[in-house]
Amino acid sequence: MSVTVLRLGHRIFRDQRITAHCCLVARAFGADSFVYTGQKDGNLEKTVSSTAERWGGRFRIGYADDWKTVLKEWKGKMVHLTVYGIPVVKEIGTIRKQKNLLIIIGGEKVPSEIYQFADWNLSVTSQPHSEVAALAVFLDRYFEGRWPGTFKGAKLKIVPQERGKKVEKIK
Amino acid sequence: MSVTVLRLGHRIFRDQRITAHCCLVARAFGADSFVYTGQKDGNLEKTVSSTAERWGGRFRIGYADDWKTVLKEWKGKMVHLTVYGIPVVKEIGTIRKQKNLLIIIGGEKVPSEIYQFADWNLSVTSQPHSEVAALAVFLDRYFEGRWPGTFKGAKLKIVPQERGKKVEKIK
Repeated sequence: MSVTVLRLGHRIFRDQRITAHCCLVARAFGADSFVYTGQKDGNLEKTVSSTAERWGGRFRIGYADDWKTVLKEWKGKMVHLTVYGIPVVKEIGTIRKQKNLLIIIGGEKVPSEIYQFADWNLSVTSQPHSEVAALAVFLDRYFEGRWPGTFKGAKLKIVPQERGKKVEKIK
Repeated sequence: MSVTVLRLGHRIFRDQRITAHCCLVARAFGADSFVYTGQKDGNLEKTVSSTAERWGGRFRIGYADDWKTVLKEWKGKMVHLTVYGIPVVKEIGTIRKQKNLLIIIGGEKVPSEIYQFADWNLSVTSQPHSEVAALAVFLDRYFEGRWPGTFKGAKLKIVPQERGKKVEKIK
């Protein structure tokens, strides 16, 4: 089973924090890896890899020159999250049966071919908001609210508190 | 019934897109208004207000000099979303009964008093990710997946499509 997120058209200056949030959301909600196109961004990759190293798991981030190659080589179904798509809730039951899933999230301009290549074009709310939120809610529905929690090999672990902060180092 | 989101410590240069995403998420997932502290940001307010005007509803964005005043004047319960809190799923049943809810989301440094003032400090996944995603998933759970869809007074409406884009103007 493999769930990968493909982020299109990353721009270093404008998108750095949004793309970083998308990466961390992908990881926290159970995706295995993240691929992005657009401008190659060493700082983004470093931030995400260092978070993944401290907090555990096998999440990987990678860069691709060309989204077409990613789509052609993908062995499994493809979901494109877009405000113009049909409601996620209508299709999530069918999609949940797919073990290998590529989730495509847009940048500023999504090539029109993406709408054709994708097996599903899906919207979360049909209102303008955020690819970070769309990805989180999609993954939450796909995994039926089962969040990974602590990851294998983590060096740090949060101990949930009613008030205040507690982080444990794991030896 | 009133659900308001309070964003702490907005910084114009660094946070503009993240805070804007938080606003649009608040609106799309059913919150009524958004208040932020930190640097007053006319562009942020313009972007959000113009989106809300085109896409309908009564969503409002406002600025507050001081978060303490917002908390003191709030008539209802307060939830603080933080990675250090207890899992949302444990408390969401109780919280759903609250009709007036202030949802606090952090900026870079959350004052320690916030953890004391809040009725609940809650985490979505107990892993580092994004306030945009935490807010979306919290609201999705609070409203039990009932998204507002089309808003009253909208000038634009998306007509969901399997492939491609369709936006209708509403007269």
